[in-house]
Amino acid sequence: MSTPTQRMKIGDFLLRRLEEAGIRHLFGVPGDYNLTVLQQLHDAKRVKWVGTTGELTASYAADGYARLNGLGALLVTNGVGPLSSINGIGGAYAEHVPVLCIAGSIPLRSIDRGLGMHHTMADGNFDHFLNAYKPVTVAQARITPRNAVIEIDRLIVTAWREKLPVYMEFPSDIAYLEIEVPSAPLVLAEAPSDPERLHSCVAAVAEHLSTAKSPAILVDTDADRFRVAPELMDLASKLQAPVAVINAAKGVIDESFSHYIGIYAGKASEPGVQETIESSDCLLAISYRPIEVTTGDFSASLPTNTIHARAHSLDIGHDNYQAVTLKEVLRGVIDAIPKITHRTSRRVEPAMMTNTHIDAHAKLTQAFYWPAIQSYLRPGDVLYVDNGTSFSLLGLKLPPKCTFIGSINWGSIGYSVGALLGALTAAPDRRHILLIGDGSFQVTAQELSTILRHDHKPAILLINNGGYTIERGYLGKAEPYNDIANWSYANLPKVLCPDTSARSFVVKTGADLQNALSTPNDTLIFVESIMDPCDAPAAVMRSSNIGAELDYGPTGPQHREGLQMRPAVAEMHA
Amino acid sequence: MSTPTQRMKIGDFLLRRLEEAGIRHLFGVPGDYNLTVLQQLHDAKRVKWVGTTGELTASYAADGYARLNGLGALLVTNGVGPLSSINGIGGAYAEHVPVLCIAGSIPLRSIDRGLGMHHTMADGNFDHFLNAYKPVTVAQARITPRNAVIEIDRLIVTAWREKLPVYMEFPSDIAYLEIEVPSAPLVLAEAPSDPERLHSCVAAVAEHLSTAKSPAILVDTDADRFRVAPELMDLASKLQAPVAVINAAKGVIDESFSHYIGIYAGKASEPGVQETIESSDCLLAISYRPIEVTTGDFSASLPTNTIHARAHSLDIGHDNYQAVTLKEVLRGVIDAIPKITHRTSRRVEPAMMTNTHIDAHAKLTQAFYWPAIQSYLRPGDVLYVDNGTSFSLLGLKLPPKCTFIGSINWGSIGYSVGALLGALTAAPDRRHILLIGDGSFQVTAQELSTILRHDHKPAILLINNGGYTIERGYLGKAEPYNDIANWSYANLPKVLCPDTSARSFVVKTGADLQNALSTPNDTLIFVESIMDPCDAPAAVMRSSNIGAELDYGPTGPQHREGLQMRPAVAEMHA
Repeated sequence: MSTPTQRMKIGDFLLRRLEEAGIRHLFGVPGDYNLTVLQQLHDAKRVKWVGTTGELTASYAADGYARLNGLGALLVTNGVGPLSSINGIGGAYAEHVPVLCIAGSIPLRSIDRGLGMHHTMADGNFDHFLNAYKPVTVAQARITPRNAVIEIDRLIVTAWREKLPVYMEFPSDIAYLEIEVPSAPLVLAEAPSDPERLHSCVAAVAEHLSTAKSPAILVDTDADRFRVAPELMDLASKLQAPVAVINAAKGVIDESFSHYIGIYAGKASEPGVQETIESSDCLLAISYRPIEVTTGDFSASLPTNTIHARAHSLDIGHDNYQAVTLKEVLRGVIDAIPKITHRTSRRVEPAMMTNTHIDAHAKLTQAFYWPAIQSYLRPGDVLYVDNGTSFSLLGLKLPPKCTFIGSINWGSIGYSVGALLGALTAAPDRRHILLIGDGSFQVTAQELSTILRHDHKPAILLINNGGYTIERGYLGKAEPYNDIANWSYANLPKVLCPDTSARSFVVKTGADLQNALSTPNDTLIFVESIMDPCDAPAAVMRSSNIGAELDYGPTGPQHREGLQMRPAVAEMHA
Repeated sequence: MSTPTQRMKIGDFLLRRLEEAGIRHLFGVPGDYNLTVLQQLHDAKRVKWVGTTGELTASYAADGYARLNGLGALLVTNGVGPLSSINGIGGAYAEHVPVLCIAGSIPLRSIDRGLGMHHTMADGNFDHFLNAYKPVTVAQARITPRNAVIEIDRLIVTAWREKLPVYMEFPSDIAYLEIEVPSAPLVLAEAPSDPERLHSCVAAVAEHLSTAKSPAILVDTDADRFRVAPELMDLASKLQAPVAVINAAKGVIDESFSHYIGIYAGKASEPGVQETIESSDCLLAISYRPIEVTTGDFSASLPTNTIHARAHSLDIGHDNYQAVTLKEVLRGVIDAIPKITHRTSRRVEPAMMTNTHIDAHAKLTQAFYWPAIQSYLRPGDVLYVDNGTSFSLLGLKLPPKCTFIGSINWGSIGYSVGALLGALTAAPDRRHILLIGDGSFQVTAQELSTILRHDHKPAILLINNGGYTIERGYLGKAEPYNDIANWSYANLPKVLCPDTSARSFVVKTGADLQNALSTPNDTLIFVESIMDPCDAPAAVMRSSNIGAELDYGPTGPQHREGLQMRPAVAEMHA
């Protein structure tokens, strides 16, 4: 029996597939090569267009959207579009986020005839951008009438299954060509595990975990991407086992969960966590990817018998299991192990930060700021952190059902503003709070315009401390290369959206901050907090200082007198 | 006899080479992986640091700087830096601009040990960014203590000789390592031509040109990049031959030069130019690269016996000459041909635009705007055009010694703001005028902050017409995907530089515009001219309309009623 088919224009088919894959919004910038698809989008009214000020922020927005929605996409124009957005796609690759970058590209007619077109290198080679995208995507294709059905489906399914970005070139002259397409909707589903391998794998893991004296679970970001946090919490409950996360996976395990013990990062772990993880006699690590900023600069050291579970494979002792999916393995293990009742939670609660000892009318400091932010958080918030002293968010305790959106590995400054737009679009009814420094904000500040244009209501909490303070902890404590121009940040919403009802605050004291944070979230709130360039949380400075050792080596200038900002007194959490 | 050497730290050697190559400014964004070089730059005080708000604009700035300076460079940090700036580097490749993109990269220590680091894909492959740069640069290298001397020199010399960008990864832990380097300065020079080939080539070209009845010269952008405009004008004078340029090479031949006849673009040529070029019995074309936007959508048709001279080779009839340089060929030909006295210039002066028939108190229109801009131009101005109705600049007559900075082929919107910063840095004493639309400006608006921070004094003439009007001529005359948020543009300088003395104007009538343009250029001038989204110069709309035919083909929606903006009355130049 043959599969039912129908005739459709290729552009309409693309949009249908996006919608079937759960993509209800497309970010991007119009250009002559993508206008045919944009017109079809406009006519069909299924997928909504969210025009951004540039392509880089479009890619960040698609990433932020995908974090909450499961899949995100952007539409840009030939050459200039994919190259402007490639950093966001590289970030999606580094952070394991499924994003489709669709470039409306030069017509097939011009490729066939070898015609020079604008937005190209004009050198007769039409594969440059496909080639540039190879290092940062898991799959690439140029769509033609012949391959449209198979390649569009391949790219979408591959992005979804691998949780990695893909790149599609969609020539401008094929959108209105009619082809035969399947009538059935696209189904996004994991290929089921090989039954024998799954059975053996589950048995082995269950055996190890249930006979262990001190089993524990360590969670990396893939647990979020593959949506297995509920299974991990079920497993921890059944095992009565502690669960830690690496910093990049902050919030993946609900921090109010009774077996959650905090962030593991070697020596930079939260209190008690390093001991628990490193002394576990059976650690289950979920897609653990150690890099210097997630391991307390390589001070992390997992037990040698750690079970390494990945999205589609698992290592236990000498055995490697393929053709198993993480979710099926975890569900199998949960079913296979007996409920443990004799263990108790061993959480060491970190001391809650407080600022009640600080004069609220004195100049605002980081020591006052972060306890105030801690008090501001509410259940269900979506929290964003960009590079800088805002990393202090990692030390806050998140209320239940919060989502953390960060880019700890890729760490491209400015990411969070675009991601905010994307995640606001995916979940407009949640409260979104952006924690960002001035240096990061300047990279992508204009995307605030799109956030205002769509009447979103995030709280944007910006630290104005005159530059790249986190870099001052590496090198250049007072050197001008770490200084930036001083904007009147709080006045920006009014310029980008003259009739906005956004409320802006310039905060110089603790009392100012408390006043700003007491305002209701019925409109966008922009809080510019002015702090000293050389005021930084000790944990951030310590990390920068150690990073400098790794980066610059023994001949580096980091020890020269006064060149490097150091932690002041340990006035905060480690 | 061996070459004299000395010992130097690798970072210091890099900076020395940059300076020897004429690079006095380095654009970019600090990051932990490039701070060692930044510290050496700060200590040596030879090359100046110009920090930008982001890496994309840093690449645009390096491009703009290179246009005037001959070579430009930027310094960014690993991964996120090169991927953020790659669109500007792709543009430099497409437009033949020699730019060095230097990425301070992860330490060699981490590469040797296979350590995961932030700003990477954390997948064990350290070559991703070198690979991503292969399609957009002519040479790439990762510097090590072994290869530093040879690779640094190779990259700089190659960029300079080919007039194309190059990519360098400079690991963070090698900057302070000492190596043996040549004591002699780097010399940037073309390899001399092969004597026999040069001699034969000059003889052949001279023979053809001097016996022709109607020789002519057609100039593309490489004439600017290889700095042969003086030779071309000498040759035209000696031959009494007309010289045309393609639109991308606007201004390369001084428009007050007596043999300059205007822009050649097939049917979209300036008056009289098409006939002169296409009927020439000996056309000398300089590095002619036909693409749709430089050829009146492929209506250009050069004579079959055209001599194609390129930077390092030349085609004449069946003969191809290699190992010859353009400058030597041109100088040889000038010397070889007799001075012609019997021909006269055949320039057809286009009608000067005028707006004296338009009520200056009526709502500002494009028909009023461009004659006013024409009157505003002065000898020696540096003029920038970004994509949009500002392309009308191509129809203006430039006073003597003006420089045109555009990106007609690559056409990345927002380029001009970054290029402005770069070229202002290279030539702060010239008057710089940026012509830009709102859609382009929004992409890179924040770089205005750096321009203000350095107290530059350009005139920024922005058209606020609510979106991408040039795209409306392709598709979507009134469709919302071509609309953008309406900023209070004129208030932006004050936000980005609160104590600025910049003068801002919001212009709604011709009289407003004349008033704004009459202000002295003793500070930055920002003129926001509000015009209708569906008011566009006929030439721009005509080009968009024909472009739509090429892009979308016969099944495209461009002919559907009301979907495409069309030229109004031909109120302006064609």
